[in-house]
Amino acid sequence: MYMNNLGVVRRNIARADRAAVEKLSRFGVATIHEAMGRVGLAKPYMRPIYTGAHLCGTAVTVLLHPGDNWMLHVAAEQLQDGDVVVAACTADCEDGFFGELLATSFRARGGRGLVIDGGVRDVKDLTAMQFPVFSRAISAKGTIKATLGSVNVPVVCAGAQVNPGDVVVADDDGVVVVPAAIAQQAADAAEAREANEAGKRAKLAAGVLGLDMYNMREPLERAGLKYID
Amino acid sequence: MYMNNLGVVRRNIARADRAAVEKLSRFGVATIHEAMGRVGLAKPYMRPIYTGAHLCGTAVTVLLHPGDNWMLHVAAEQLQDGDVVVAACTADCEDGFFGELLATSFRARGGRGLVIDGGVRDVKDLTAMQFPVFSRAISAKGTIKATLGSVNVPVVCAGAQVNPGDVVVADDDGVVVVPAAIAQQAADAAEAREANEAGKRAKLAAGVLGLDMYNMREPLERAGLKYID
Amino acid sequence: MYMNNLGVVRRNIARADRAAVEKLSRFGVATIHEAMGRVGLAKPYMRPIYTGAHLCGTAVTVLLHPGDNWMLHVAAEQLQDGDVVVAACTADCEDGFFGELLATSFRARGGRGLVIDGGVRDVKDLTAMQFPVFSRAISAKGTIKATLGSVNVPVVCAGAQVNPGDVVVADDDGVVVVPAAIAQQAADAAEAREANEAGKRAKLAAGVLGLDMYNMREPLERAGLKYID
Amino acid sequence: MYMNNLGVVRRNIARADRAAVEKLSRFGVATIHEAMGRVGLAKPYMRPIYTGAHLCGTAVTVLLHPGDNWMLHVAAEQLQDGDVVVAACTADCEDGFFGELLATSFRARGGRGLVIDGGVRDVKDLTAMQFPVFSRAISAKGTIKATLGSVNVPVVCAGAQVNPGDVVVADDDGVVVVPAAIAQQAADAAEAREANEAGKRAKLAAGVLGLDMYNMREPLERAGLKYID
Amino acid sequence: MYMNNLGVVRRNIARADRAAVEKLSRFGVATIHEAMGRVGLAKPYMRPIYTGAHLCGTAVTVLLHPGDNWMLHVAAEQLQDGDVVVAACTADCEDGFFGELLATSFRARGGRGLVIDGGVRDVKDLTAMQFPVFSRAISAKGTIKATLGSVNVPVVCAGAQVNPGDVVVADDDGVVVVPAAIAQQAADAAEAREANEAGKRAKLAAGVLGLDMYNMREPLERAGLKYID
Amino acid sequence: MYMNNLGVVRRNIARADRAAVEKLSRFGVATIHEAMGRVGLAKPYMRPIYTGAHLCGTAVTVLLHPGDNWMLHVAAEQLQDGDVVVAACTADCEDGFFGELLATSFRARGGRGLVIDGGVRDVKDLTAMQFPVFSRAISAKGTIKATLGSVNVPVVCAGAQVNPGDVVVADDDGVVVVPAAIAQQAADAAEAREANEAGKRAKLAAGVLGLDMYNMREPLERAGLKYID
Repeated sequence: MYMNNLGVVRRNIARADRAAVEKLSRFGVATIHEAMGRVGLAKPYMRPIYTGAHLCGTAVTVLLHPGDNWMLHVAAEQLQDGDVVVAACTADCEDGFFGELLATSFRARGGRGLVIDGGVRDVKDLTAMQFPVFSRAISAKGTIKATLGSVNVPVVCAGAQVNPGDVVVADDDGVVVVPAAIAQQAADAAEAREANEAGKRAKLAAGVLGLDMYNMREPLERAGLKYID
Repeated sequence: MYMNNLGVVRRNIARADRAAVEKLSRFGVATIHEAMGRVGLAKPYMRPIYTGAHLCGTAVTVLLHPGDNWMLHVAAEQLQDGDVVVAACTADCEDGFFGELLATSFRARGGRGLVIDGGVRDVKDLTAMQFPVFSRAISAKGTIKATLGSVNVPVVCAGAQVNPGDVVVADDDGVVVVPAAIAQQAADAAEAREANEAGKRAKLAAGVLGLDMYNMREPLERAGLKYID
Repeated sequence: MYMNNLGVVRRNIARADRAAVEKLSRFGVATIHEAMGRVGLAKPYMRPIYTGAHLCGTAVTVLLHPGDNWMLHVAAEQLQDGDVVVAACTADCEDGFFGELLATSFRARGGRGLVIDGGVRDVKDLTAMQFPVFSRAISAKGTIKATLGSVNVPVVCAGAQVNPGDVVVADDDGVVVVPAAIAQQAADAAEAREANEAGKRAKLAAGVLGLDMYNMREPLERAGLKYID
Repeated sequence: MYMNNLGVVRRNIARADRAAVEKLSRFGVATIHEAMGRVGLAKPYMRPIYTGAHLCGTAVTVLLHPGDNWMLHVAAEQLQDGDVVVAACTADCEDGFFGELLATSFRARGGRGLVIDGGVRDVKDLTAMQFPVFSRAISAKGTIKATLGSVNVPVVCAGAQVNPGDVVVADDDGVVVVPAAIAQQAADAAEAREANEAGKRAKLAAGVLGLDMYNMREPLERAGLKYID
Repeated sequence: MYMNNLGVVRRNIARADRAAVEKLSRFGVATIHEAMGRVGLAKPYMRPIYTGAHLCGTAVTVLLHPGDNWMLHVAAEQLQDGDVVVAACTADCEDGFFGELLATSFRARGGRGLVIDGGVRDVKDLTAMQFPVFSRAISAKGTIKATLGSVNVPVVCAGAQVNPGDVVVADDDGVVVVPAAIAQQAADAAEAREANEAGKRAKLAAGVLGLDMYNMREPLERAGLKYID
Repeated sequence: MYMNNLGVVRRNIARADRAAVEKLSRFGVATIHEAMGRVGLAKPYMRPIYTGAHLCGTAVTVLLHPGDNWMLHVAAEQLQDGDVVVAACTADCEDGFFGELLATSFRARGGRGLVIDGGVRDVKDLTAMQFPVFSRAISAKGTIKATLGSVNVPVVCAGAQVNPGDVVVADDDGVVVVPAAIAQQAADAAEAREANEAGKRAKLAAGVLGLDMYNMREPLERAGLKYID
């Protein structure tokens, strides 16, 4: 049948290289996003449930229906050490699909965190557990377990395309998705970018202007910028 | 006259049983909401003004008009020890209806906190006071005192029906309203639910899957879930 | 040419009196806003990127285009000690126009903070630097440097009119703009207002009602308020 | 059990007086809302799916869950001639809960229209049928039939409290709810208000100012309005 | 006193040149906005209440408070033939500040339409009158007359700075403000722009590509665009 | 280089079978969406710019940057008869990326319409041309031509994954994407579904209840629905 990604669980997925994931975990989301050419970012409405939350892992994807978290239980079984659950929903819904019991289960199975285009609850407990969650909302409203979605199919989560096994990195600045095939390259590019920034930072701190450091004066003049005293 | 809830203050209201309120104060909003059958929740845009804010008390309700906080002063006189002010507005308005002076007054009269479908200000001071407030916005914009609303009439606050004397509980997960008549039953149901969760938590932490603990495998198969290797 | 505020940088601006700015820095945004007659406030969607952020300084204004932060680099050169950058955008855009490198540059040039009707990133670093930023969003998405805007022209930032040299004050309650010409008067009025509040606070804490302290009972009765037992 | 409004269908409801409903149908929503003292209005995000849609009838209420329209089918059986279905949802959801097949069914059972705090679809067909619908969204996304809600219980729909049998009136200006008990009084008050407006309209059209017609000059002066030449 | 724009009505304002206004009325908002250098546009949430609404006139500005339309009555007296009322509000509010009675009055006084950063009602009647209104919302909720605002002071309306006497043009594409001092230049620039577009249109209709007509191929290649077969 | 979809134009794309597209054009979006298993729908904020707009064609995809429409000109050259342009943006932006000149060009090259996760302008002209456009906003604000995006790469448009050559269908109910590989199957399924609905419609019009026609009474009873007299 053609819609072969409905009501299925894919058990074998190709996860990104572990070393590349490890390396990516050392860089911020903004750096990785720049390093990839400014693609792969989730919408900025995705926010950490506590300040300082950070996650980096390989995606186990979930497609949910509004008000129904059944597939998160199905996903728990598919988790391997180092995975992150990435949950999309077929329609915008801010219900609390996830709480500390599921977090306990995910962690016990090796899960490193959750990115969900929906709501979560038990944020006090999740914070105490330091279980990183990035969500569109916080809501005490629970969900039911009645409708099949899917696990480990391609999903669009908060505007970002995510395939199972992709690397997902999230911090206070947002959530970025790195396709598994380019994880190592992205990590290398992020490293290069960060190295490059250290020198810039020192110059700027010393009072050098970006105008000079980036050689912007000539292009600004060419574009027609006028200074008026 | 028919619109007998306009421009009135009801002085005698039936508050929920104090012991039930006390018991409810021990449970989280998510637990209480589940225990009641998933009803009574305010919209998730209602957020605490500081992390960890918590309140539980009997509702003194207020109906405000946009940009006008006169009735909050009227409400202060109706407060008894253990009350929470629940303020609705006749139209969406994010003005700062409430600040630390009113909080000082509310606390002096026994008030335990505020739930307001509008904005508040002085959040630094309110945080220092540890006066719990749940609101739709934070805004420095003050309000006037020109138009009559009502106190202790039924209101719809952030989508939740609230009658005077109902129990209102709020924490990091949101705001829930427990009708006074069922406060004891809701507290008992919350207690039972929480007791039940402790055992589940231990199992999940040990790696047992929700799929097995909740006996989901058979219904999932019946619903047509397919596993693909 | 008539549109003489496009593609220009005004180098000489009249900054508000330094002593007045210093005095304004001692008062909260809500107090200043009230003292000015409830005008000059930015929309409440402008939020600090960390709790407790506070800034007060003279505005160097910037007009940006969506997805382009070129003019922030141009603005850095115009900063003097005590300035705050106020950035508007020609269309709503939540991109991350600003991060810790620019903050380093701004601080090195005397900048005291940023108010931007757009997004910012590197919030962890900015928080560590305690560089106060008030923005409409947080987003890891970077921007380009391709289109001319302007520096030190009148702008509308988050609904508030800002002229170069105006005083901008921001804290947990929001952002307020004080025209340079009235900075001293606004500071004096804020001081008077705050002095006046201390006495009120003590009375309210002692249980005196606002109804009595503000003599509201008579006007409420005249307006038709009815008490029902 | 206490939550006696969950999973129930109330078959016998007290509908508002038919003559009062008929009379109310002659007035606009704005007029009725004013006549009732400015209460009972749904949030302004509720919009007609086609220009000129109008409905007036007695409410058969429905409580839905996100993504599930099962209860609309249950409600169809409870419809009597002159009823309007008013559907609330336990969480914000823009799915298309309703389309032309259900409209066909509702109409066949005497239904006069739908007010739904959710999405609808088949708007081209519904427009062709001239079946009036007021909704928060239009969405092609269909729903499932898996979870019990309730029919003919009190609901909060788009911020308005609605009891079964209340009169619901909707036009291009919005949706207003008239409690059954005061339907006749509200109709009479609306009639009086409208009669009163005709005279005002003629005067204003002749150039008389509201300032004079409503005797506003003196109160404006007292409030301190200053005219500057 | 310093806040000399609070509670005042300025009777004598400098209106834009009538011939320039007349000329501007022949061009669309998008054309005028481009002709001015892409400034002066109100936020796109401002929409006509009926398809095809169009207005062009000199601004009589009004500053309202949320839920209060008193100043619209004051403004009516200040209208001259060819004026448009532009109403801002001190806080976001979607109440229905304006309806057909005020429209009747405005028209009788020479008013050509309304631009309001708030809600309006009686849209059916206003449409029948063909009285053009551009607003942020439609709402049946009426307002009170209790608080002073101002008339003919500078305002920020939907993000656009408007001074009394400026030209305001609005059509299906939005609302643009042309400062009085440059009305003639803007009209001339719009005319030139439109003339220029006619030739382009013919070419494009004949199948010529913008790539060629605008000579984009070389800059695209220089920017690095790659064609892949 | 790894990010091989940045700054590229793919000239050869595999378009869905023409007959399948033709067949799909006969069905509504809601029907097609249901026929595919309730996937592929764009967010409901995507609306037609005029009532009755309809399009069905093969996607030429475009990735834009905020405030920049350069790539729409590049896309025009890639259009073949029967194509529809589907434009995504790297960040939410409501600028008017598209107007009647581009529509003229698209139509001259065989384009059948536009789906854009951004704003458009000249809606009066576009309506007169009956050029179907589905967008997230209408805005007179024009854009620049400075930054490379891509043409005919996979994009996420309003939450829907779109590959070049996929079928895009849009009507008053929204926008749905049919992957090229399953276009024929989706068309057949839609046809079957529509045939099936005709019979249902007749029964419902005759007063048969969905409860009986869909055999819902038994499952409702099993789920615990209680009827109360």
